[in-house]
Amino acid sequence: MENTQSVSCKCGRDAVYLRVQEGVHYCSSCLSRQTERQFEKTISKGKMLEKNDTVAVGVSGGKDSMVLLHLMKKLSEKLPMKLIAVTVDEGIAGYRDRSIEVIKEFVKAAGIDHRIFPFENEFDVTIDNLVKNDPSIKSCTYCGVFRRTLLNKAAREAGATKLAVGHNLDDEAQSVLMNVMRGDVTRMARLAKTSEHFVRRIKPMKNIPEKEIVAYAVINNIPYFDVECPNSFNNARRDVQGVLNDMEQKYPGTKSNIISFYRKLPAIGVESVPVKCARCGEPASHEICKACELLEKIKN
Amino acid sequence: MENTQSVSCKCGRDAVYLRVQEGVHYCSSCLSRQTERQFEKTISKGKMLEKNDTVAVGVSGGKDSMVLLHLMKKLSEKLPMKLIAVTVDEGIAGYRDRSIEVIKEFVKAAGIDHRIFPFENEFDVTIDNLVKNDPSIKSCTYCGVFRRTLLNKAAREAGATKLAVGHNLDDEAQSVLMNVMRGDVTRMARLAKTSEHFVRRIKPMKNIPEKEIVAYAVINNIPYFDVECPNSFNNARRDVQGVLNDMEQKYPGTKSNIISFYRKLPAIGVESVPVKCARCGEPASHEICKACELLEKIKN
Repeated sequence: MENTQSVSCKCGRDAVYLRVQEGVHYCSSCLSRQTERQFEKTISKGKMLEKNDTVAVGVSGGKDSMVLLHLMKKLSEKLPMKLIAVTVDEGIAGYRDRSIEVIKEFVKAAGIDHRIFPFENEFDVTIDNLVKNDPSIKSCTYCGVFRRTLLNKAAREAGATKLAVGHNLDDEAQSVLMNVMRGDVTRMARLAKTSEHFVRRIKPMKNIPEKEIVAYAVINNIPYFDVECPNSFNNARRDVQGVLNDMEQKYPGTKSNIISFYRKLPAIGVESVPVKCARCGEPASHEICKACELLEKIKN
Repeated sequence: MENTQSVSCKCGRDAVYLRVQEGVHYCSSCLSRQTERQFEKTISKGKMLEKNDTVAVGVSGGKDSMVLLHLMKKLSEKLPMKLIAVTVDEGIAGYRDRSIEVIKEFVKAAGIDHRIFPFENEFDVTIDNLVKNDPSIKSCTYCGVFRRTLLNKAAREAGATKLAVGHNLDDEAQSVLMNVMRGDVTRMARLAKTSEHFVRRIKPMKNIPEKEIVAYAVINNIPYFDVECPNSFNNARRDVQGVLNDMEQKYPGTKSNIISFYRKLPAIGVESVPVKCARCGEPASHEICKACELLEKIKN
């Protein structure tokens, strides 16, 4: 939130935030309401939720997922639905165990059912062990694939009809730009793709900039665990994030433009039709799913 | 060209250049031959030239267009065609007049017909006058539109069947990325579009990285005018260029990936069908062409 002394919100209160692109100043309350409106608009425009859905909310304890859980809880007071918070525990001591404490306290106070799914139970590995056995391993690759698989399974086992994840506008823009920079049209197509083998993933915060999510958390006293994963270092996503922040600063609207570019593209066909993994039965785009492929790699 | 002491080219000579993406070291001769092969391959794959074409080569005097002219001349010894160098003179004293001197000397020695088309004759303006009258004017916008229109007219008046321009791989990647960052799908579509109202524009160097064009010029003693336009300052293209150079350094292949991304996209439909400008008769995407629109702006 920037210091915009003596500038007023349209409601008359002191402004605390400038939405650069539209040139409008906001006070805390109006910004908060604007975030909630954006969230609800995204859900209704994308027909993401129906009455009586059972929604598994993927919660890591970071700002995005904690704000998502708060917004979903708030929405559930207007739109009847069943909420279940699901957390994947990758087995990273001093990091995930601590973020889980933050979640536990929050869900207890909010009266939300919470389930934890450890990598160890599902895959017989932890990220800590992987890194210990091979310090040069690209643990983010394993972590990402395993987490995605497990989140889907967790949602399915919880009887969820939807799986809500906390991707924000910055994440989306980063993903599009990374795919462009990698020349990866197929993955770009998959970004939007839903498959019957997956519990439908919804991203109700995909139109909310990261800055505004942080602001929302602060304004609404939503606790979150603000520590970076000890295994995440100099990676491509972070570089792309830096590029995007620089460009957004200089050319306000760049992030939204990138997303609108992606949404304006004609539907892109994908060659591979999701099937069931021959080994574990989870959804896969090849005979063996990516998680089983990586597991085999570790075990050899 | 980087210093790769004691590393040899596959031909046995000392290497002077490393193509990072393929991890292959090149000596001057092999790099030069590789550039020529890439140039010819792009032409034949894109069916850019036919026997007995009349090719207008857009030449500004900078490295790209001088290398293009050299390569076209060399090719014309194998593939019979008529070459005409065409130069647009935007009217920028101390800059374009000096680069024209470089071109004149080169075309004289090479025996290539050369024609100069001044903005002043065509549009009754020079960039110097525009900037003098309004120092805050975005002269690059005017310059770009006027130059494109005039190059096409120049080619047509010279009876050319093709208009060759010196865009390199870096330019192409920048254009794609700029369009992504601006959310401009229509312009992206136009990047590739050819229209019967335009002399067919070909880009035979679109697969050659800028670095290799500079290397080629140096190795083959091709003169070029290496001064930046006095009116070009901190613009979006330069920022995108910086981003791309950083990313290419860190993730070799990024520039090619971006282009391959663009080429893999399914054909994108464009709404507007090019027509003739009601005012000047040149090709236009609206009733009045962009050049006439800008001219009107200046004169009011």
